[in-house]
Amino acid sequence: MNDMQKEIVEGLKRFRLEKIEPLMEHDDFEGKFRMEIFNELGELGFTGMTASEEYGGLDLPCQDYSYALEEIAKSSVAYAVTISVSSMVQTIINTFGNKEQKEKYLPPLTSGQAIGAFALSESGAGSDAASLKTTAKKVEGGYILNGSKLWITSGGIAKTYVVMARTGGEGAKGVSAFIVEDGTEGFTYGKKEKKMGWNISPTRELLFENCFIPEENLLQKEGEGFKVAMSGLDKGRVAIGSISVGCAGRALDEAIKYSLERQQFKQAIFDFQGLQFMMADMACDVEAARLLVQAAAKSIDDGKSNQKLASMAKMRASDTAMKVTTDAVQILGGVGYTKEYPVERFMRDAKVLQIVEGTNQIQKVVISRQLKKEYGQ
Amino acid sequence: MNDMQKEIVEGLKRFRLEKIEPLMEHDDFEGKFRMEIFNELGELGFTGMTASEEYGGLDLPCQDYSYALEEIAKSSVAYAVTISVSSMVQTIINTFGNKEQKEKYLPPLTSGQAIGAFALSESGAGSDAASLKTTAKKVEGGYILNGSKLWITSGGIAKTYVVMARTGGEGAKGVSAFIVEDGTEGFTYGKKEKKMGWNISPTRELLFENCFIPEENLLQKEGEGFKVAMSGLDKGRVAIGSISVGCAGRALDEAIKYSLERQQFKQAIFDFQGLQFMMADMACDVEAARLLVQAAAKSIDDGKSNQKLASMAKMRASDTAMKVTTDAVQILGGVGYTKEYPVERFMRDAKVLQIVEGTNQIQKVVISRQLKKEYGQ
Amino acid sequence: MNDMQKEIVEGLKRFRLEKIEPLMEHDDFEGKFRMEIFNELGELGFTGMTASEEYGGLDLPCQDYSYALEEIAKSSVAYAVTISVSSMVQTIINTFGNKEQKEKYLPPLTSGQAIGAFALSESGAGSDAASLKTTAKKVEGGYILNGSKLWITSGGIAKTYVVMARTGGEGAKGVSAFIVEDGTEGFTYGKKEKKMGWNISPTRELLFENCFIPEENLLQKEGEGFKVAMSGLDKGRVAIGSISVGCAGRALDEAIKYSLERQQFKQAIFDFQGLQFMMADMACDVEAARLLVQAAAKSIDDGKSNQKLASMAKMRASDTAMKVTTDAVQILGGVGYTKEYPVERFMRDAKVLQIVEGTNQIQKVVISRQLKKEYGQ
Amino acid sequence: MNDMQKEIVEGLKRFRLEKIEPLMEHDDFEGKFRMEIFNELGELGFTGMTASEEYGGLDLPCQDYSYALEEIAKSSVAYAVTISVSSMVQTIINTFGNKEQKEKYLPPLTSGQAIGAFALSESGAGSDAASLKTTAKKVEGGYILNGSKLWITSGGIAKTYVVMARTGGEGAKGVSAFIVEDGTEGFTYGKKEKKMGWNISPTRELLFENCFIPEENLLQKEGEGFKVAMSGLDKGRVAIGSISVGCAGRALDEAIKYSLERQQFKQAIFDFQGLQFMMADMACDVEAARLLVQAAAKSIDDGKSNQKLASMAKMRASDTAMKVTTDAVQILGGVGYTKEYPVERFMRDAKVLQIVEGTNQIQKVVISRQLKKEYGQ
Repeated sequence: MNDMQKEIVEGLKRFRLEKIEPLMEHDDFEGKFRMEIFNELGELGFTGMTASEEYGGLDLPCQDYSYALEEIAKSSVAYAVTISVSSMVQTIINTFGNKEQKEKYLPPLTSGQAIGAFALSESGAGSDAASLKTTAKKVEGGYILNGSKLWITSGGIAKTYVVMARTGGEGAKGVSAFIVEDGTEGFTYGKKEKKMGWNISPTRELLFENCFIPEENLLQKEGEGFKVAMSGLDKGRVAIGSISVGCAGRALDEAIKYSLERQQFKQAIFDFQGLQFMMADMACDVEAARLLVQAAAKSIDDGKSNQKLASMAKMRASDTAMKVTTDAVQILGGVGYTKEYPVERFMRDAKVLQIVEGTNQIQKVVISRQLKKEYGQ
Repeated sequence: MNDMQKEIVEGLKRFRLEKIEPLMEHDDFEGKFRMEIFNELGELGFTGMTASEEYGGLDLPCQDYSYALEEIAKSSVAYAVTISVSSMVQTIINTFGNKEQKEKYLPPLTSGQAIGAFALSESGAGSDAASLKTTAKKVEGGYILNGSKLWITSGGIAKTYVVMARTGGEGAKGVSAFIVEDGTEGFTYGKKEKKMGWNISPTRELLFENCFIPEENLLQKEGEGFKVAMSGLDKGRVAIGSISVGCAGRALDEAIKYSLERQQFKQAIFDFQGLQFMMADMACDVEAARLLVQAAAKSIDDGKSNQKLASMAKMRASDTAMKVTTDAVQILGGVGYTKEYPVERFMRDAKVLQIVEGTNQIQKVVISRQLKKEYGQ
Repeated sequence: MNDMQKEIVEGLKRFRLEKIEPLMEHDDFEGKFRMEIFNELGELGFTGMTASEEYGGLDLPCQDYSYALEEIAKSSVAYAVTISVSSMVQTIINTFGNKEQKEKYLPPLTSGQAIGAFALSESGAGSDAASLKTTAKKVEGGYILNGSKLWITSGGIAKTYVVMARTGGEGAKGVSAFIVEDGTEGFTYGKKEKKMGWNISPTRELLFENCFIPEENLLQKEGEGFKVAMSGLDKGRVAIGSISVGCAGRALDEAIKYSLERQQFKQAIFDFQGLQFMMADMACDVEAARLLVQAAAKSIDDGKSNQKLASMAKMRASDTAMKVTTDAVQILGGVGYTKEYPVERFMRDAKVLQIVEGTNQIQKVVISRQLKKEYGQ
Repeated sequence: MNDMQKEIVEGLKRFRLEKIEPLMEHDDFEGKFRMEIFNELGELGFTGMTASEEYGGLDLPCQDYSYALEEIAKSSVAYAVTISVSSMVQTIINTFGNKEQKEKYLPPLTSGQAIGAFALSESGAGSDAASLKTTAKKVEGGYILNGSKLWITSGGIAKTYVVMARTGGEGAKGVSAFIVEDGTEGFTYGKKEKKMGWNISPTRELLFENCFIPEENLLQKEGEGFKVAMSGLDKGRVAIGSISVGCAGRALDEAIKYSLERQQFKQAIFDFQGLQFMMADMACDVEAARLLVQAAAKSIDDGKSNQKLASMAKMRASDTAMKVTTDAVQILGGVGYTKEYPVERFMRDAKVLQIVEGTNQIQKVVISRQLKKEYGQ
């Protein structure tokens, strides 16, 4: 880490330990998201880390952003994810929006006054984005949206949604991207998912019933939605990878601390070689995952964004989070299974990281496709 | 399976699908145990499967008992565990109790009118049972118990507790076993654990404050507590192994069914070879785990109870439950992470199976010790 | 094991330790197969274990056969494989041959005077058997074979080959099975594979150049070759599974013995918990693999041959052999990597077990297909 | 990679493909090391990469050295290891030698005219270096060495040995380091190990029988041998890690190329998702291993040599080499098991990488110890 990165991480560490950590057991149980925490993160600049300074962002390199998300995730996977999705929306608007769109929508998002959300998934289209069914029918001055979106992170708490809908024929080419504001007539929220974890971050259905969206909220031209949707993928995957490293790192930290204190058979359980070897493996897994994530982030910073590396980072880091949190609960034993220690929460949160932003199976498809290309096929 | 086993399993399947399954999502969320379900299981004979017929049991072989627990666990790990712990208490009383103790305590337990619980763990003594601190001081006509027991399965809902307490000096030899009834003066319940899963089965602290236990509730003689505590271990481990197989088997079943129905990219996701290979592995893991559990059960039925095999069965089956449930959630993807499908519940329940009845690390210690013995050391 | 099984295994143990074990390091290095050992195994009955007594076999159940192969493999994977392939040929001739074919070909095979080999693979057709190119053109009184067979176990040492060749059109239906004798005009041996292990068992190319095979050597009718080829698969997979268990079991045995003797840091290295835990896992893997193999064998003995179970047994047991032998070399450390101890040989032999009789990836395809059927698809 | 690194790697690639690759199958089978190849590598500067320019070295950063070893290992693990051990000897002499020692011994080593070897291990002391038994008795003008060293890489082909021997009492403090020349009276070579792989690199016993070593060949002072022995460990581990990455990378390359060409069931086997997913995992493993190795190398270049990172790099990279080569053989199937393709050789070579420079179990001990320190214990 360079000095800038250290400063960011230390600032975030102080903030999360003081403001986030003490609430987590309670808020996870209640499924309570606190807008005031998001606002405060915004005041510190952490809700617009990658956005351009022109619109209130910090314009940080992806490597710094990655360390920041990792640090936040050490207390809360949920807040880190909320930031990362909102940042992806900022990147999309910044990249594809016109001047008016940027001026209108970016400042509230970068400053943490509003949350951005991204609406692609539908009940019949999870990994298979090209088959989506929500329609946007061209009318005078705009479009009429009908359909629903499922499993939308920050659904209900976000103000600014980037929504993919079909304006043309079948397949990827018929899809367009719209900016939709919370409160638009005809746009309501459906069922809120009851999940095994990630409870602080709401996951919700979006319903569109003859919802009129003005023309000026179309991003780029009709039919370019898929390009928009795909554009943020690499950075989004690096973000989930970073959060996974934070999640795993925290669990490892808890396991080491507990095992150094807990005595059984008259010695610290850390000193049992069987447990020690587990922790050596866990530490190595976390280190390797972080290096992959940072390498993928660096490729973005170097302007050579690398799908293969981004997919590897996301896949390996989230698999590591799942394995390391599961093992951390094991090392704590009975108490690890209870809400007295945070490891069980991180274990529940880890599972979703293997699923979002493309399941880890989809990542393998992406990696293989890239390997094939490298071999000229 | 022989005909008897098939009959047991089919009976239990009907019962669990009708009476248990529909309540599980709700009861898991609420942490609600229903005594009436236990009573009904008792009327069908399933709360006293291994107890002798003389005292109302079915006197089933351990292999049959294993299949039964597996079947119940397919709907509820929690009810299966409640039965297995109560059965262990029955075995202890049946083996070590005198005639009066058996006549008094066994019939309510075998018939499912009462639940048995086993109280060994203390806050400083998890795997290291010999270091327990609860004391039983000899007084006129009985003993005075002082201390507390932690992490007691069925704590608060059980009527009959077998409690380990120190009557003599240090180490294993100073420990005795007592039957303690719910409601005894000086015996109260402490904090109830808030857990990541297993929510239907309460895990609770027991508090003893100058609690008088009559002499006739001592099992065997003073100092024989450790022998009592260890006696049920093999069968207890086979029971957890059986429940683990049920837990894993149910998750596999959900994954296969979902993947045969769910379409993506115009085909059932089962037909993607990457997922197919995962399920082939999962199916093989479940089969191997069941065979280990049945082999350990058979060794008990043959009167050649085999610590190594029991430990292998417990370790491998619960590791399989953890892995298979985690992968099953993955195959269901987003919806697998929600409470709409039961796989997330089974994943949370699986974790505790790696911890109870001796962590899987303790099982490795046991296995190694037996290997060493086999090689004459 | 029942008494019969114990007797078989003890007999084989004596034989292998006396006659096979002392030659293995040398013969593996030289790639030397000894017909006299095979003959002696034949005198003891072990070359015709599953054949019917009518033709000189022992007519043993598959479970006994499995234990026997496991025992032989503890000294030599190569001799065990030679027996298993020759036994498969016996099963094929016994099942599909007519009286004359049985009388002529079975007695030398069952008695160990001759070795049987099975010739299906071709250079372009490994797992994809239906695409084979060797032709058998009908002529007066017989067939003319042209083509070549690759990777044939016991090629060059066998006397009796069952050869698959195309008599009709494309696909599986055009394939017929022939018995071809060593020494037939037009039938020669091509290159002998130089392998990483399995050196005692020759793997060789068969070349057919206008090779005339008399009509009476056709098995069944034209076009039934594929049925013949598939018929022995389940038992063949159980055989490879059994050999894998023997291979793994021997490596485990060497690791435990070495680690109990070898001192480092003033204690037996077995007593380091990190190594102990490895061996506990290895022992559990071997046990589980054996149970799967025996369960698959039992399903054959019960007349309910179960493709899924046979594939699981083959896959899991050979994966176990690979893992356990690799770990055994690790436990022995530097000396494990040398030819002073047999573990390196078992590690090299283990690798091929993951490949033959259908690669373990093909086994996953089979298992998945069966799972799908079980769910009515 | 920076431009310098690219140049090094490209130069080595040309050299290895032209001069090394074509000989490998033959030389591995014959166990033949060719001094002329080493000399040529020397002429190109690659035998003294890390040594100071003053004595003929290239004074390259460890990160460049790592890429270079990785590249050589893609054709030959053996030559890469010979270089790495000889480089470690150079580092030791450079760090601990006096001016005369450096001037005498370094130039032939850096220029590739001589090979250096390191002699620590003894039959009773593998991981437990402090218990070594070879003695060096002080006499007029020098020392008399008696004892033997086992498992010495480059034994017999090296000219310059750094030998650890006991000059004082028990434990680490009694050990001193000597430079011993090939051909010294009383110094002979014992048995040459017959290994499963790594055949081109001789591993041999060194025998000392009243072998007189002049005083000026003592490195530093008496009793500082252990410091000397430990000094090169981190770089040595990074070297083995680098070689492991090359070994794994080559196997992956072969697997991808083969699977893109090989057709089964009418498509390239690469297109079977089950195999594709394996290769995606393998590629991710290789990438993560390389990042760990480079991170450890960088810590050395930054002057902050990090035992934990070096041990992680060695452990993870060699475990990756073992796994990836085993899977590569699997993807090639039958032919992968033969000497027609190099993957089987890389699989045999990979195994030793898990054992040398501290077994991977010892690495876990080191990692755990460092973790403990980080937590202030």
